[in-house]
Order: sequence, then C-alpha cells, then structure tokens
Amino acid sequence: MRIAIVDESGLRATILEEGLREAGYDDIEVVPPRGAFVARLERLAPDVVLMDLGTPSRDSLEEMLAVSRALARPIAMFVDQSDEAMIGAAIDAGVSAYVVDGLRKDRVKPILDLAVRRFNAFATLKAELDEARTALADRKTIDRAKTILMDSRNLTESEAYALLRSTAMNQGRKLVDVANALITASALLGGTK
Amino acid sequence: MRIAIVDESGLRATILEEGLREAGYDDIEVVPPRGAFVARLERLAPDVVLMDLGTPSRDSLEEMLAVSRALARPIAMFVDQSDEAMIGAAIDAGVSAYVVDGLRKDRVKPILDLAVRRFNAFATLKAELDEARTALADRKTIDRAKTILMDSRNLTESEAYALLRSTAMNQGRKLVDVANALITASALLGGTK
Repeated sequence: MRIAIVDESGLRATILEEGLREAGYDDIEVVPPRGAFVARLERLAPDVVLMDLGTPSRDSLEEMLAVSRALARPIAMFVDQSDEAMIGAAIDAGVSAYVVDGLRKDRVKPILDLAVRRFNAFATLKAELDEARTALADRKTIDRAKTILMDSRNLTESEAYALLRSTAMNQGRKLVDVANALITASALLGGTK
Repeated sequence: MRIAIVDESGLRATILEEGLREAGYDDIEVVPPRGAFVARLERLAPDVVLMDLGTPSRDSLEEMLAVSRALARPIAMFVDQSDEAMIGAAIDAGVSAYVVDGLRKDRVKPILDLAVRRFNAFATLKAELDEARTALADRKTIDRAKTILMDSRNLTESEAYALLRSTAMNQGRKLVDVANALITASALLGGTK
C-alpha cells in the first residue's frame, strides 16, 4: 500500500511516518504542500493520503478540501482544532477520516484502516447510485426511441424493441446508443419531438 | 439535541458527559448496556448515540454493532484498541464515527459533530439510491402494464398510458399501484404473462 503524507511540518510528518513504519508500511512519501504538489500527488497515485493541517485557516482548509475532491482517494485529515462548519465542509468534500487533535504515532494505523474502509463503503454506495440512475436514464431513452418507431413506422411495442435490438446487434453498438442516435435523427428530420 | 451515552463504566461515562456539558449540551442520558437497554434507547429516540466500549471482545462489539444497525441513528463509538477486522465491521454496520483510543473530554464535541454530519451525508446518499431504484422499478411496472393494455385492447402506447393515468386519477391512486393491480389481475386471468 502506497501512502502519501501531505505535511508542512517536518516534525509532525515524522510522527505520522514513524507510526506507519512501525505498523509495517514502507512505501511512504512525504509531500510538502508547496508548488505543484497536487500534480506530484497525482503522479504518485497513492492508495491513501494522510494530510496534516495543524491549525488551518478557513482558506487553507478549503484549499486542501479542493485537493481531496480532485484526488478522489481515501483521505485522512489531521487538524488540531476544528469547528462545526469545518467538520461539515470536510464531510461534504468526502474526507474519509477527519481527526481533531489526534496526531499520535500509535493512532495512525487504525485511522488509516478506517479511512480506506470508509472510502470504499462510500464509493460502493455512489457506484450503486450511478448505476441505478444510468439504468433509469437508459430506459427512458429506449422508451422514447421505441415510441418514435411505433408512431413513424406503425409498429407494435415489441416490434419496435426488436428492431432497435437487431440494429444494435448488427452494428455492434449498445441499445441505448442506437436509441439516442434515433432520437437525434428524428429531431433533425423534424419528426416526433 | 438529545444525546444518549451507552457505557458500562461510570468513570468513562462521566468523561463523555462532562465533555458534552462543557460544549453546551444538557439533554444527556446515560444508558448502561444491560437488560432491555435497546428498548430504552428506542424510547429515548436520541439524536445521536455515544457508545463507549473500552476494550471490547469480538462478541460484545458484534452485539453493539447490531444495536447500531437497529437504531439507525448517528453513532459515535469509542474503543481503546481495534484491529482492521473490527474497523471494517464497524464501517459496514454504519457507525458514523469510530474512535480508537480517543476518549478525552475535549474531543467529544468535534466527534459528535462529525458523527451527525457523516450520518446525514450517508443517509442522503442512501435516500437518493432508494429513490432512483424505486423510479426504475416503477417505470418497469408501468411499462409492463402498458404492454398488457396495448396487447389485450389493441391500444397505442400513448392510449395505454392515458388509460392508466385516467384510471389512477379517477380512483385517487398512484399510477404504479394501478399498474401493479393490472399486472396481478392479468396473471390471475391467464392473460399476458
């Protein structure tokens, strides 16, 4: 497991790094949050990111949350103090573990495990949501294409579906792509809206 | 905000309670995990539950996770030590904050905020997933009912839809309920499968 530590302070990065090494991790990279560090993080493609923010200003927290969103990886964020608004912003940004005043060597490993687990649980749920929404949108598209065929060629519903399906198979395309093409063409030709 | 503290140890419950009172909360109930404590928790209907498990055995953690699932409320769980499997089980059970060796008075308030926020974020996502899945299932049901009407009464797709819709309006029922009734009746009458 590759772990990136984003930390301004050498001392505090060392606490995190030592905790990780004692827990048996050795693929660790410390990335100071300066210059093109986001690009460097992206190149590293870490499995999990530990961010130590100390006592962040509202602005620097916001900046790090933007980085978190862009990375879309499990992130454990350590801060020394926090208010409700900051906590809310961190959760909304998808930070997997937000640890207030808990930077201690022996706490690093469980927090890392927690961040990975929580990230995966959330990612699974989001993937299921995407899937359900796509299925619904596809179905609407296919229904609309069927209706166009039924109206314009006087087909029954099952004939229309069979025609879409055979066209998709013959062209090696997805049913929904054929349906979309038909809807676009029909609009261009001034057919059924 | 009503807060329930589930704790076996009077001393540790006091640490949590003091942290909460200093943060301005006063609707706090300590519930020892004995007897019919789950029923008592349900009656209390707390906005958030803090569970202090100390050093739980695998069995007692499992029991508390079952309680967490049943309550379906924001839960912050404090343990003194944990392994990866326990952390995984806690995340899977929907525990909103799982805190390893972090029982300290001044950490209680941010953890409570975090638990509530995280619970809400997850609940929102789950509600969206339910909604998308219901919409998809409803659409399938309505499509099937439309097909039955089109085949059995030789209607066009839009005539079938209009008939379902007017029936639902006349009877003050939901479109999907009328569709479901039609599918059941059709199966009973040996019509379209």
